Amino acid sequence: MSEKKICLASDNWSGAHPLVIKAITEANESYAPPYGSDPWTEEAVSLIQKAFKRECRVFIVTTGTGANIFGLRICSKPYESVICTDIAHIEYQESGAFEALVGCKLLTVPNKEGKVTPDELVKKLKKERAFGKHSTSPGVLSITQPTEIGTVYTLDELKALAKLCKEENLRIHMDGCRLYNAAVSLDTSLEEIVKAASVDILSLGGTKNGLAGAEALIIFDPDLEKGADHLQKQMLQLVSKMRYLSAQYIPFFKNDLWQTLARKANQKAQEIASIIKSIPELSLSYPVETNQIFFIAPKAWIPLIQEKIICYPWDAEKNEIRFIASWNTTDEDVEKVFSIFSEISKNQITI
Amino acid sequence: MSEKKICLASDNWSGAHPLVIKAITEANESYAPPYGSDPWTEEAVSLIQKAFKRECRVFIVTTGTGANIFGLRICSKPYESVICTDIAHIEYQESGAFEALVGCKLLTVPNKEGKVTPDELVKKLKKERAFGKHSTSPGVLSITQPTEIGTVYTLDELKALAKLCKEENLRIHMDGCRLYNAAVSLDTSLEEIVKAASVDILSLGGTKNGLAGAEALIIFDPDLEKGADHLQKQMLQLVSKMRYLSAQYIPFFKNDLWQTLARKANQKAQEIASIIKSIPELSLSYPVETNQIFFIAPKAWIPLIQEKIICYPWDAEKNEIRFIASWNTTDEDVEKVFSIFSEISKNQITI
Amino acid sequence: MSEKKICLASDNWSGAHPLVIKAITEANESYAPPYGSDPWTEEAVSLIQKAFKRECRVFIVTTGTGANIFGLRICSKPYESVICTDIAHIEYQESGAFEALVGCKLLTVPNKEGKVTPDELVKKLKKERAFGKHSTSPGVLSITQPTEIGTVYTLDELKALAKLCKEENLRIHMDGCRLYNAAVSLDTSLEEIVKAASVDILSLGGTKNGLAGAEALIIFDPDLEKGADHLQKQMLQLVSKMRYLSAQYIPFFKNDLWQTLARKANQKAQEIASIIKSIPELSLSYPVETNQIFFIAPKAWIPLIQEKIICYPWDAEKNEIRFIASWNTTDEDVEKVFSIFSEISKNQITI
Amino acid sequence: MSEKKICLASDNWSGAHPLVIKAITEANESYAPPYGSDPWTEEAVSLIQKAFKRECRVFIVTTGTGANIFGLRICSKPYESVICTDIAHIEYQESGAFEALVGCKLLTVPNKEGKVTPDELVKKLKKERAFGKHSTSPGVLSITQPTEIGTVYTLDELKALAKLCKEENLRIHMDGCRLYNAAVSLDTSLEEIVKAASVDILSLGGTKNGLAGAEALIIFDPDLEKGADHLQKQMLQLVSKMRYLSAQYIPFFKNDLWQTLARKANQKAQEIASIIKSIPELSLSYPVETNQIFFIAPKAWIPLIQEKIICYPWDAEKNEIRFIASWNTTDEDVEKVFSIFSEISKNQITI
Repeated sequence: MSEKKICLASDNWSGAHPLVIKAITEANESYAPPYGSDPWTEEAVSLIQKAFKRECRVFIVTTGTGANIFGLRICSKPYESVICTDIAHIEYQESGAFEALVGCKLLTVPNKEGKVTPDELVKKLKKERAFGKHSTSPGVLSITQPTEIGTVYTLDELKALAKLCKEENLRIHMDGCRLYNAAVSLDTSLEEIVKAASVDILSLGGTKNGLAGAEALIIFDPDLEKGADHLQKQMLQLVSKMRYLSAQYIPFFKNDLWQTLARKANQKAQEIASIIKSIPELSLSYPVETNQIFFIAPKAWIPLIQEKIICYPWDAEKNEIRFIASWNTTDEDVEKVFSIFSEISKNQITI
Repeated sequence: MSEKKICLASDNWSGAHPLVIKAITEANESYAPPYGSDPWTEEAVSLIQKAFKRECRVFIVTTGTGANIFGLRICSKPYESVICTDIAHIEYQESGAFEALVGCKLLTVPNKEGKVTPDELVKKLKKERAFGKHSTSPGVLSITQPTEIGTVYTLDELKALAKLCKEENLRIHMDGCRLYNAAVSLDTSLEEIVKAASVDILSLGGTKNGLAGAEALIIFDPDLEKGADHLQKQMLQLVSKMRYLSAQYIPFFKNDLWQTLARKANQKAQEIASIIKSIPELSLSYPVETNQIFFIAPKAWIPLIQEKIICYPWDAEKNEIRFIASWNTTDEDVEKVFSIFSEISKNQITI
Repeated sequence: MSEKKICLASDNWSGAHPLVIKAITEANESYAPPYGSDPWTEEAVSLIQKAFKRECRVFIVTTGTGANIFGLRICSKPYESVICTDIAHIEYQESGAFEALVGCKLLTVPNKEGKVTPDELVKKLKKERAFGKHSTSPGVLSITQPTEIGTVYTLDELKALAKLCKEENLRIHMDGCRLYNAAVSLDTSLEEIVKAASVDILSLGGTKNGLAGAEALIIFDPDLEKGADHLQKQMLQLVSKMRYLSAQYIPFFKNDLWQTLARKANQKAQEIASIIKSIPELSLSYPVETNQIFFIAPKAWIPLIQEKIICYPWDAEKNEIRFIASWNTTDEDVEKVFSIFSEISKNQITI
Repeated sequence: MSEKKICLASDNWSGAHPLVIKAITEANESYAPPYGSDPWTEEAVSLIQKAFKRECRVFIVTTGTGANIFGLRICSKPYESVICTDIAHIEYQESGAFEALVGCKLLTVPNKEGKVTPDELVKKLKKERAFGKHSTSPGVLSITQPTEIGTVYTLDELKALAKLCKEENLRIHMDGCRLYNAAVSLDTSLEEIVKAASVDILSLGGTKNGLAGAEALIIFDPDLEKGADHLQKQMLQLVSKMRYLSAQYIPFFKNDLWQTLARKANQKAQEIASIIKSIPELSLSYPVETNQIFFIAPKAWIPLIQEKIICYPWDAEKNEIRFIASWNTTDEDVEKVFSIFSEISKNQITI
């Protein structure tokens, strides 16, 4: 009898929360205005605005990459560059969409545990500005919260970056495709995070935290709003039957379902991280602060792990594996992780 | 008591067919590989390939504009231009996405009842080629079937264009966001249409014919496949939880639901067109061949019509109104159209 | 003995004025700062500013297309479109550079004797704005003075367009690759033309009026200056040994050489136009207001003309030929045109 | 009496060789076909083809950045990336032109003494290909010969890179803005260098080695020629009075003037490098292989050097200065460098 593998591959392997599917089903009334003029979009936008406790422009969009590119197109000028880390999604995992669609240069700084540090930022600014008009004019800092390796900027770290950006005249874009997990990790609100970072424009996730497929782009700086509605269409983010995307956000924000789901994912990641810490042959690559876990295993273990657990080897040369817990990771899944590792440990003489 | 208006605004105001919503719901299993490696996408792709009865690459994408831009990005080279009519969606209704994302020039020819004619095409080619390297090199013809005003290229018309394009070394893109309605109108298969037109790359709709939100891009010319998977990501058309889009296509293609729905929409449009023809004050702008109806009404009628029927005034100066029938337009709707017009006719002395 | 043909092909077939070559030669001192920090550029910029009698930013650039694209890149935003005539150089003769490098949509209006009319502009604005965010937001009007067919906007026509543009919130770009010929034709200054048109950004020629190869881009609206120096580099218009371009402008502006040269070209065009008018078989296509002459000849004459005069057939189907007089067109050239036409007329029975 | 400073700022501060100015003057005949159909361009192209001893397409263009961007636009596809070093001109000194005009991603590898090494290239390919369609497809390697810091790839190093590129299916672009200095340094021909590197497309300099302002783009791979003439116009590199650019190349290639000039520049750089080596307080940053010299000086020396010698501080934090010798650097200049350094050394107690 073949036993079903458990899945720690990614939070985008997970299905949608039943309330989200219910919301889609209920949005299936006969007629509704297209392109975001429907009542579901109105309600979703209003709920998101309430979550951020201030005036802002909210656009419901199709994908995280879509939100990033649409957002960066809005906030960068043709002569400017955007700064991010060397492992930023926009740099490394969006197949050149930034350069192709925004048309600016992306400057990268080495990440420190996934983060941009003020020192590296200052160094990069100095370098890019050294030759004046012969190089670009840095215009935007794009940070990912939580980072691509699951670490979380503290509010103080965000404030320090925001202060520096203000001094250096940089706008701030935040890639918050898992912002919910950061908020839970910091035990704070979504609002506090964007306030600390003085975010001008935010890519807000959804899909990775239990939606079926919906993301949002939020403009906090009103100076950036001009033309944004045209750009939503131009950047391929204007969906005709938008209600089926927007409806998903309604249960998600109505009873802080986003918090429940993100808390669950983070909690399960902590439990798995504890197991890993308890096994001498394994070592965590980074502190586990949200729902992502990177760890090094003995080379011989890797196929054995993959036999039982759907997951991605991350840095093959370092024998690094990535686990991502999800809103629907179960206690049973965690227990199985423990038994799988114990079993391997028992049977293997590590190399 | 306020009576509910009937809606003939557009087929993208309509909800999704219940089987489509059911398919979304059923796709909500625990885990599935993201980015199109899931079994629903596999099945949808296979059903679409069967419908076209030949080898082709199928990509499930987010919007019609997304499909068009992704497709044209694939099939046009940097020194080339793309030719379409002056009312093509890519020219007039995509907020400059083509120029911004594909980066080529769009050349327009005057439409004849919505269509590109061989004569106009030849004329445009001659003009653009007259100054050699100082102008662009026309590389692609993009045609919309059915056209933006609901007319349908006959198979012979398509063959004539295909022949000309072959002689002139143009690739052919078809915007088929309502291709189903054309197939029903011509009483032919999807396959016959793309064969007649020697289509190299097709934007295939779905959303306007009863899906909740899913479109497809199909590459028929294998020479165009290289790099297309990267471009799907780059052009923001790669959805992580793709199963919720792909699943919609399964019932749609399984029992030719697409045909049932398109036939219904076309049929209702015919019935409404008959009513319009029967009323002396109204006149159809174009032959009604699919589910779109454009007609001229006395100026004073327009607010009265809009009071009872959700619809768009099209060319305000010409007092033109557009109706679009949909898969869920009912017999009752048609009857109401008749009573509304009769009522207005009775009460009005037309100007 | 083969007699040398006379050349009325284009003003870019003509060599440079001897003073211009002298200026290049004299600029060949040992060392000078590159990229425009040299004294020749300083002087050229200052002379140009004086000619326009006001504060403005002047960039010396490489080509007319370079000036246009650099200028339009500066003054158009990503969600905007630029409006020009259907025969504008940027639309028809720059091989898609606008779309490829600026990335916006170019909207064309039918020209009336080469010009944009307020009526056509209003019509186009109305059409493009009819569908809101689904189309682009028109942001710039680009006019060519003199037009591509050699006609000249009067100061009143320019004022009317400027007024309309202000009301409609459009910025104004002027393609002035032959602006000198317009100034002479209107018997006014360069300054008066840009003032009448409220030009925000100007492509100013040089090459077609006796320079060896140098053009300028002038920003009159200070709000457009930000980042323009970076964009000069990015748009490939920043030449390292700029002195050899800038030096050409010094004699050109110092003693109003530009005026002498343009006056000569216009004068010779008038003389040739008079000849054409005097020959019953020939007819001018447009009023001859600068140095361009378009005329219709009997079909059989065309090869005979081309045998003696280097020139371009313009619209082959209409048997239209274009002559362009230049700063170095001579009295002898004009006399020869007369004899050639007389000879043909005598020998031919026109069809 | 103020003594004139000597200039070692850059080879683009130098004037043009007298023969080059003479050629410009002689090209100033009355009329010539524009856009490269003139006899000077024909001759220049033919001379360049002879220098490379094979069939190739030669385009005369305006600037080095223009050649690079035009060339990379030709040889990269929309889904591809281009790899270069972290100090490549296209990466660091072209104000984002590559991203803005080519629209692809530029991937950088850490340079080793200015060069791409096979190891770093392999590492980068592995990384970029690790996530398949989510990242770009590396398509082109762009190398600079000599490098931005004046070092020279040996023919064996070039062959090794060429072999690797062939295996990895990468096309090769060479930025040869100072290729002449590399040829002289390697005591080889231009042809041998491009052969060793299997160059597909070459940016060939001119301006930095004694021209007044002209560069070339050479296509060696015939598959890349299609549409290149349109792209020359589109990428703003098609000059109307091209003869004044092309003419400069005629004396330059006719008697191997390029070699004489580059040899002179390299020789003077060697002499200056010897002086630097002889002064204990100074140290060269890199081997001096062409006409560029980077060296570290005591902090207190820097203003003293700049008082007498026009030059750029390079890396301010490292107290690094750059000297570039030129075709017109004289024996007297070299002697003065010696006296200036000796004087400073005598008067200073270094920190």
